[in-house]
Amino acid sequence: MSSAVAVHKKAAELGKLSLRMTSVAGSGHPSSALSLAHIVVHLMYERMRYDPKNPWHAGADRLVLSEGHAVPVVYAAYADLGGAVGCCRDKARLLKIEDVDTLRDLPSPLDGHPNPAEGMPFFDAATGSLGQGLSVAAGLGLGARLDGTDRRVYCLIGDGESREGQIWEAVDFIADHKLTNVCAVFNANGQGQADYVSVQQSAETIAAKLRAFNWDVIEIDGHDPAAITQAFDHVGQTQKPLAIVAKTVKGWGVDQLLNGNWHGKPLPVADLEAAGKSLDKKVAEFGTGDGVLGTPKAPAQPKSPRQRPCPQEVKWPTFADAMKAGGLESALTKGKIATRRAYGAALKVAGDVLPQVVALDGDVSNSTFANVFAKAHPDRFFECKIAEQNMVSAGAGLSAAGFVPFVNSFAKFISRAYDQVEMANISRANLKIVGSHAGISLAADGPSQMALVDVAFFNAFASVRDSGQPLCWSFHPADAVTAYNCTRLMAQLKGMCYMRTHRPDVPLLYAPDAKFEPGGFSVLKQGQAAAIVSAGYMTHIALEAAATLAKQGAEVAVIDAYCLPFDAQRMAAAIRGCGGRALVVEDNYGGGLSAAVAECAAAAGDLRVEVRYCQRIPKSTRTPEEVLDYCGVSAAQIAAHAQKKLV
Amino acid sequence: MSSAVAVHKKAAELGKLSLRMTSVAGSGHPSSALSLAHIVVHLMYERMRYDPKNPWHAGADRLVLSEGHAVPVVYAAYADLGGAVGCCRDKARLLKIEDVDTLRDLPSPLDGHPNPAEGMPFFDAATGSLGQGLSVAAGLGLGARLDGTDRRVYCLIGDGESREGQIWEAVDFIADHKLTNVCAVFNANGQGQADYVSVQQSAETIAAKLRAFNWDVIEIDGHDPAAITQAFDHVGQTQKPLAIVAKTVKGWGVDQLLNGNWHGKPLPVADLEAAGKSLDKKVAEFGTGDGVLGTPKAPAQPKSPRQRPCPQEVKWPTFADAMKAGGLESALTKGKIATRRAYGAALKVAGDVLPQVVALDGDVSNSTFANVFAKAHPDRFFECKIAEQNMVSAGAGLSAAGFVPFVNSFAKFISRAYDQVEMANISRANLKIVGSHAGISLAADGPSQMALVDVAFFNAFASVRDSGQPLCWSFHPADAVTAYNCTRLMAQLKGMCYMRTHRPDVPLLYAPDAKFEPGGFSVLKQGQAAAIVSAGYMTHIALEAAATLAKQGAEVAVIDAYCLPFDAQRMAAAIRGCGGRALVVEDNYGGGLSAAVAECAAAAGDLRVEVRYCQRIPKSTRTPEEVLDYCGVSAAQIAAHAQKKLV
Repeated sequence: MSSAVAVHKKAAELGKLSLRMTSVAGSGHPSSALSLAHIVVHLMYERMRYDPKNPWHAGADRLVLSEGHAVPVVYAAYADLGGAVGCCRDKARLLKIEDVDTLRDLPSPLDGHPNPAEGMPFFDAATGSLGQGLSVAAGLGLGARLDGTDRRVYCLIGDGESREGQIWEAVDFIADHKLTNVCAVFNANGQGQADYVSVQQSAETIAAKLRAFNWDVIEIDGHDPAAITQAFDHVGQTQKPLAIVAKTVKGWGVDQLLNGNWHGKPLPVADLEAAGKSLDKKVAEFGTGDGVLGTPKAPAQPKSPRQRPCPQEVKWPTFADAMKAGGLESALTKGKIATRRAYGAALKVAGDVLPQVVALDGDVSNSTFANVFAKAHPDRFFECKIAEQNMVSAGAGLSAAGFVPFVNSFAKFISRAYDQVEMANISRANLKIVGSHAGISLAADGPSQMALVDVAFFNAFASVRDSGQPLCWSFHPADAVTAYNCTRLMAQLKGMCYMRTHRPDVPLLYAPDAKFEPGGFSVLKQGQAAAIVSAGYMTHIALEAAATLAKQGAEVAVIDAYCLPFDAQRMAAAIRGCGGRALVVEDNYGGGLSAAVAECAAAAGDLRVEVRYCQRIPKSTRTPEEVLDYCGVSAAQIAAHAQKKLV
Repeated sequence: MSSAVAVHKKAAELGKLSLRMTSVAGSGHPSSALSLAHIVVHLMYERMRYDPKNPWHAGADRLVLSEGHAVPVVYAAYADLGGAVGCCRDKARLLKIEDVDTLRDLPSPLDGHPNPAEGMPFFDAATGSLGQGLSVAAGLGLGARLDGTDRRVYCLIGDGESREGQIWEAVDFIADHKLTNVCAVFNANGQGQADYVSVQQSAETIAAKLRAFNWDVIEIDGHDPAAITQAFDHVGQTQKPLAIVAKTVKGWGVDQLLNGNWHGKPLPVADLEAAGKSLDKKVAEFGTGDGVLGTPKAPAQPKSPRQRPCPQEVKWPTFADAMKAGGLESALTKGKIATRRAYGAALKVAGDVLPQVVALDGDVSNSTFANVFAKAHPDRFFECKIAEQNMVSAGAGLSAAGFVPFVNSFAKFISRAYDQVEMANISRANLKIVGSHAGISLAADGPSQMALVDVAFFNAFASVRDSGQPLCWSFHPADAVTAYNCTRLMAQLKGMCYMRTHRPDVPLLYAPDAKFEPGGFSVLKQGQAAAIVSAGYMTHIALEAAATLAKQGAEVAVIDAYCLPFDAQRMAAAIRGCGGRALVVEDNYGGGLSAAVAECAAAAGDLRVEVRYCQRIPKSTRTPEEVLDYCGVSAAQIAAHAQKKLV
């Protein structure tokens, strides 16, 4: 048990370092950092069971800094403790105090906001886009429970940031799943960026909200070491999830920062000395003497960690066996299976062969067919209800805990969480995202249920390489064989993958033992006059258009581009082999497959590529054929376009 | 005052119609519709002050059906009341009962989910992606207040949907702005899609949450006509915002629907007769006699409606005067102005000349410079705090109320609300979205604060035409002159517009009286060897690269593509005039400008286009130059790319 004086002294010391590093960097948030100083001292020096020199330990308690901009105080503590930095344990080095001066510098692991991928393994996820940390903490908490690990996850949340609805999605989720290993700490310093926080985000209202959400709440002065210690003594001891609401002072102890709005502004270097004296004066108010801080305790040992076999090395069943395992025997006999159904079976099989596969769904598992997985692996299925943002970030947390999470919803509703998807991408989370009912083939339900921008969004990630790999692989299966194999690839590939599936039942296009690969595509029909390039549901329409054109004497090829990115050289060569002309068709908006093919053609310079995607906002129709026609992408319209412009 | 029997009878009648229309359509949500039947009867037949035959009346009370899938019961009531449908008042017709059989059919205004744009003017916004309605209602409430209209806005919210964090963002927002003209009704039928709702969404917990969020709450049996009437009598009479939490029964009165999970499933047509009898039996439980329903009351007259001059006809100040009006006189003298600062001045000026312009910001108005507007027009500025989803949907509500809302945040944080942006697009909302700190030039703060996918996302909308117009105009100004003119274009164009601005101060590239147009681009430097196409901050880097190449003997043109979509024919011709070769450079991920130029070149067939955008996930650096180099898009790297591949 520490003496209060020692905590105040350490808080002031970290405060000085926070001031110094932001002044040297020329930007950053020292005032927010100071408001958290005492809580960070308690957690990182006394409370957490971890080894700063081995943040990779599977049983270590974790800290999620949801209000990422307050990170200087954590960097200060971590440097003071000699914490390990580096992208992996083999290449780790220990931070020194003077490293804080590298904040926000190119070669530094001390990025502007927390980011494990830049060499700060103390963190589990990139934060800084606000309101996401508690969901990440929830994912870590679920992961700890699955591994039988007595790990605790502390999450620091700003009061202003608690305006983000996602915080309350996470609060619901943690209550539903009784995650008492997660402790939410609300830092009520009363100031946002542009102004003071609303009374709706006052300490009192936050506490009342949490109680109404069925949490236990302790309200404290966030600069009172004894109160802090007493509050955190309750972690893991409560029946309900526990939140600590701490009233704090933005810019604590630094007179200059207490006047006016200093959010996100470092002090001029010349003012650092005065600020240091101000902090010393503040500490002196609490008496003299040295006092003693505690030391971090040893991390817990995982009790029943899941096996995590190499996804490339396990044996997967044949396509037919997989479909049967997923209850699709009769559909297989009929030869027509919706890609979403095949995915459900594939996900279940992935769970069979890989104990680290977990699945999350947002109250639509009977539409996405994630319920096939849920039935087979109920302990690894997490119902997130209608709250997609929390679902995606919780998936990122599960990924950080070493699991392979598949998050599921309608593809349209995944767009609710595109910011969270990008944050997971920045974290290099091993997240698998599957959206059903993509494109317009859903027909009757109308545009509010149709994903029309998803191909462009995920293709933006697919267009960029990181360490030679795309930031995201985006799969778009046209039939059940492809859906099964793409699911398998998603489980095997490291990093973010996206797959979009469709509602209608469609015939099989591929032989059961067809091979699929990242970056691959297939020529489903040969032809010299031109190529129609498509994916997913539209591949069936493209084949229909090609048949129409064949009757008119034009043999056009049909290329099924089931993966983005594809091998651009091979695609250019394939189009070159079809007269150097292609028509790309999609039942969504532009910027996705069309853009990718056009980029490869434009770079080649000797190809001509036309694109044809949704020409208007869709509306409800009773059949897919009607809405395809309404949006200008029916088989007849595609054939006419090709006839007029290409063949 | 109605008799209870009359309400029950009408509820059963609407229930039968809901069953019938969904069975005929072959899809839809009759069970959800039945749970709302009594409340809809009360609101649409007795409570709301409106004329079903003139839903365009500016003072009419409004109904926002946040749980859009329950729409059949509203369609049934509206058809029964002979409500007007059609895309504008001049072309309206009155619904007849038999029109309900057109639900979800191609030519019908009765879309699968509410959508004013398909000819259902009773609604203000498309709903169906859940959790957005209360924010739209808040926007309508703000609009009514601005116009001095005693309009009330009723919003029906599902219990399962109240898991969406956005609902609680809206609850905070309505409390902050004391919008007692908005009444939130929670339909607690206890069932979601895949399962029952969580205890976190029980009627009791929802009520407790609302009280903690500082609302007044009345809990009722949602099938008890007297209780419903008494509850709604309190609307407009409370100091705090009022919510009504109604316990209801999914599939009310239909025995068949009370067993098992019927979410989103219509009855077989053959079962309709039995279902009707079941409803009759249910109604008989409440006694006999006819009873009398009320009739809708006349709408209120707006007291002080804002002038709404034609945006094309007002006189705008010169660029220099606009900058001075925005407090940028000294910056103008220095000749360096960040686009975000110029935008702040432009927005203020837009507010000066157009009383219908309003602005919203998410606690970053001192970064986006929306605070310049706020200072000049405090009554038309709405602080939304850190809750971007609510901000965008509230903007859509203000648009439906006839205002021209500009919503502002960091471009990265706008991505938090991409689903809401698309729903606003489906509604054809006249929404202007401005994201600051776009791309990587922000440098020090790192990737969590940088918009890297926004160009691709908005370009997906820009790629599609609706009634000959793009679904969205996307602007990307390189200097203050462009930022001012693009803001002006945004205010003048009808429909969704997006603009991304940047953090760094940059020199002026255009003459003060330069002309800008939708679909336009500018050749800033002539050259025959090739063209570099760019926009925004990168246009300055492109000019630098071009200067380097000029020193090496290659005169390349620089094209500033400040608008997406651009005129593809003109762009192809411009590139053709530069040797038929172009390099597109962007400081974000692919799928945006690169894709648009590549598509136009690929279609032309005689051009060669290389693309160069961020080649990796950025990290913090202290200067823009460092992060540009880190991501492979520095001036030197661009020049080298052009030298190697094009010139």
